[in-house]
Amino acid sequence: MDITADSLARLNDNPLYRVIGIHLHEALDGHARATLTPDPQVCWPSPAQPHGGILFTVMDTTMAFAVMSVAEPDRGCATVDCSIQYPAPARHGPFVCKAVAARKAGRTVFVRGEIVDANETVVAYGQATFRIIAAKT
Amino acid sequence: MDITADSLARLNDNPLYRVIGIHLHEALDGHARATLTPDPQVCWPSPAQPHGGILFTVMDTTMAFAVMSVAEPDRGCATVDCSIQYPAPARHGPFVCKAVAARKAGRTVFVRGEIVDANETVVAYGQATFRIIAAKT
Amino acid sequence: MDITADSLARLNDNPLYRVIGIHLHEALDGHARATLTPDPQVCWPSPAQPHGGILFTVMDTTMAFAVMSVAEPDRGCATVDCSIQYPAPARHGPFVCKAVAARKAGRTVFVRGEIVDANETVVAYGQATFRIIAAKT
Amino acid sequence: MDITADSLARLNDNPLYRVIGIHLHEALDGHARATLTPDPQVCWPSPAQPHGGILFTVMDTTMAFAVMSVAEPDRGCATVDCSIQYPAPARHGPFVCKAVAARKAGRTVFVRGEIVDANETVVAYGQATFRIIAAKT
Repeated sequence: MDITADSLARLNDNPLYRVIGIHLHEALDGHARATLTPDPQVCWPSPAQPHGGILFTVMDTTMAFAVMSVAEPDRGCATVDCSIQYPAPARHGPFVCKAVAARKAGRTVFVRGEIVDANETVVAYGQATFRIIAAKT
Repeated sequence: MDITADSLARLNDNPLYRVIGIHLHEALDGHARATLTPDPQVCWPSPAQPHGGILFTVMDTTMAFAVMSVAEPDRGCATVDCSIQYPAPARHGPFVCKAVAARKAGRTVFVRGEIVDANETVVAYGQATFRIIAAKT
Repeated sequence: MDITADSLARLNDNPLYRVIGIHLHEALDGHARATLTPDPQVCWPSPAQPHGGILFTVMDTTMAFAVMSVAEPDRGCATVDCSIQYPAPARHGPFVCKAVAARKAGRTVFVRGEIVDANETVVAYGQATFRIIAAKT
Repeated sequence: MDITADSLARLNDNPLYRVIGIHLHEALDGHARATLTPDPQVCWPSPAQPHGGILFTVMDTTMAFAVMSVAEPDRGCATVDCSIQYPAPARHGPFVCKAVAARKAGRTVFVRGEIVDANETVVAYGQATFRIIAAKT
C-alpha cells in the first residue's frame, strides 16, 4: 500500500498522536520512520523522560506502518506480540523510531525496530509479529 | 516496600495516568492490580479500543508496582525488557490488569501479568524483567 | 486432536527426545506436560545443568503439544515466536514443563508455559505464539 | 575478554556442540559468529530441519560469546531472557548465526542476533538480555 504525503498528513492528525507527541514521517517498502517529541504529561515518573509505555506506543505505531507499507491496499494490521528492551534511559529527546518489516510470510509479518535519542543512543529495541487483517472500517 | 492507601492516592494523582485513564488499586507482597478506563483520546485507530501501546503502558505500570512491593523502601525500578501478546481485541472496557513479581533474584525481578476486559476475556499477556535501582529523586 | 496413550508412545520414540532426555506425558484440552531428565551431554558448560537452549527445547516442545491438543485432526503447528526467561539456575533435575494453550484465535494460538525443578522452583517461564498449519507429511 | 584461536578450539570441543553440530568461529568486540551443521538426530519432526529449540540453542550460544567478548577476563554470563522469532522454515543448512552485544549497561548486556540459511534467508531473529556474572569454575 502506498502511503502518500497526503495520507501521512491525515494519519498524523489524530488525538492519540497529539496527546503523546508522535509524528509519522514515512512508510515505504517495508520501512517506516516516526519521531516522538514527548508531551510533558506523558513524561512520568521522571520529568522529561517519556514513560516506557509511551516509547512502546511509538515503536508499535512505527512498526504497524512498516507493515502497512507491504500490505495490499485496503488492509489493516494487528500486533500479535511485541518484545521491547530498554538499553538506556530516554533522557534526551526528541526521539526517532525506525522499523523494518523484515519478512512477510503469508499474512504474518516479522518486524524489528529501534528508537534513538538526540545523541543517537539507542533507548529501545523491538521485535514484533503482526498480522495483516481486513481493514477496520 | 509498603504501598499504603495514602501513597496510592498520591501515586494515582499524576498527568500520565489521568490522560490515559489508569488507576492503581493495590500493590502488596509481589501482587499489583490496576484498572484502565481508557480516555477516548487514547482509543485510536478503533473508537472505544485503547491502542496496544496504552494496554502496554498499563501492563508495564502494574508490573512496576508489583516489583516495588517486593523492593526495599526508598528504591525505584526500571523495566529491562517486556514481551506482550494480544490474544483478543480490547473492545469491552473497563480493563483490569494484574501483575505478579514471580521471582526476585538479587536486584533482578521476573514479572508476569495479564489484562482482562469486562467479560473476563484476556486481551493481553505480559512477561517482563525489571531491575531494582536507586530511587529516582 | 486427541493424543492417545498409543500416539504418545510413538511421539516419544524419536532421536531428538532421546538425545536430550525429553518425555511427553500428556496433551489434552490445551494442556500439555513433559519431563526433562537431561542427558549429561546436553549439560554444558555447567555439569548437571542443562543448557538454556535445552530448557527452551523442552518448553517449545511442550507448548507445541498443548497447541496440537486444540487443533483439528491431521494438523501440525509451527512456532511463530517465543520469549523465555530464566528466573533461577537449573541445577536440580529432573524438570517438569507444563504448557497451556491460553487462547486460540483462528489458526493463531497463544501459549504460556513454565519449567520447575525437583524442588518446585521455577527455572523457566515462556510465552509464545504458534500457528496451526497443514500437517507435515 | 579476548577469545583467541586457541581458546576457540577448546570451546568448540564439548559434547553439547558435537551432538548438535555447533561450531563457534569468532567472538570479538561484541560480535560473535557460529555455524550450525545440524546432526540428523536433532532434525525432528521434519527431516533435515533442525528443531526450533536447536536453532535457539545456537542463537543463545552465539549471543553468550558476543557478551563474553565485552566482559572482563575471568567472567561468565547468564541468559536472563531471550525472544526468538522464526520468519521462515529452516530447510537449507548449514546455518550461520551472528550476534551483537548492542549495549552494555553495568553488568547487563542487550544482545541481538539472527540466523540465516545457505541461501541467506533469515530463519531466526533473536533479542536477549544477559548478565555478566562470576566465572563458573
